[in-house]
Amino acid sequence: MKLMSATTTKNTNKPSKNKSNFILIIGCGRLGADLANTLSSEGGSVVIIDRNGDAFRRLSPTFTGLAQIGDATLLGTLHDAQIEKATTVVAVTNYDNTNILVAQIAKEMYGIKHVIARLYDPERECVYREFSIDTICPSLLSMEEIHKLLVVYEGDSR
Amino acid sequence: MKLMSATTTKNTNKPSKNKSNFILIIGCGRLGADLANTLSSEGGSVVIIDRNGDAFRRLSPTFTGLAQIGDATLLGTLHDAQIEKATTVVAVTNYDNTNILVAQIAKEMYGIKHVIARLYDPERECVYREFSIDTICPSLLSMEEIHKLLVVYEGDSR
Repeated sequence: MKLMSATTTKNTNKPSKNKSNFILIIGCGRLGADLANTLSSEGGSVVIIDRNGDAFRRLSPTFTGLAQIGDATLLGTLHDAQIEKATTVVAVTNYDNTNILVAQIAKEMYGIKHVIARLYDPERECVYREFSIDTICPSLLSMEEIHKLLVVYEGDSR
Repeated sequence: MKLMSATTTKNTNKPSKNKSNFILIIGCGRLGADLANTLSSEGGSVVIIDRNGDAFRRLSPTFTGLAQIGDATLLGTLHDAQIEKATTVVAVTNYDNTNILVAQIAKEMYGIKHVIARLYDPERECVYREFSIDTICPSLLSMEEIHKLLVVYEGDSR
């Protein structure tokens, strides 16, 4: 286990990891880091896991959560992050398979109530629905957004 | 120029490319292809460009538009696609720089009224705003969606 505080200067508010508000984020890419920064700034307890320590450079200097280097598909990593105390687990690595696996572990093995996974491939959504996992599909969201714009354009040209 | 009909069997309704409804899509990844398939099924005239002909495998067998192999950052490619007749240009390659460049060419050189570009890096959005280009940022959309879910979860636990 490698646990590191995300900031060396302002890590006074360590996450309490109480049942009421502890969010575990898997993947410190753009989305994971933005989410961690936002939730942290809103006072949430956040632990973020990534296999690559360099990824944590995306965390804000004001991030007050914990950044843990590790492979979240390994139970030991999730155990170290105290997943069992999480109210919400958000799996947003760049790999659908990793997100599926971690989300299923969180839901099925640890009984985490709220589990969100990002899915690049919208066709895999059915897998998640069976497990009551909420999914975020960037390409579907982008499609919806483009459609909204096209409708506005049509309105403009009438 | 390499122009190919996306289907060998059902390409009877070739895009008329009239000013009223001709959409040019750059990038036949998941989003570009889904958009092309949807707009085509809705009766729109669609031309989709990708550097890689293999990408067109994502197009539906019922896609009635044209698929053009080419580098859309080259003016010749856009000229071949008759960009000047497009009402809307949508740049959704996997590369922000390509999307920025094509969107700017469409807007500035060809005066296309409606230009949409996908941006993975939300910090580049300001570049687009200056050029009146509409942007789709998947990570921002995903963030908003996750936030909505977290609000629902909070409501559940009260």
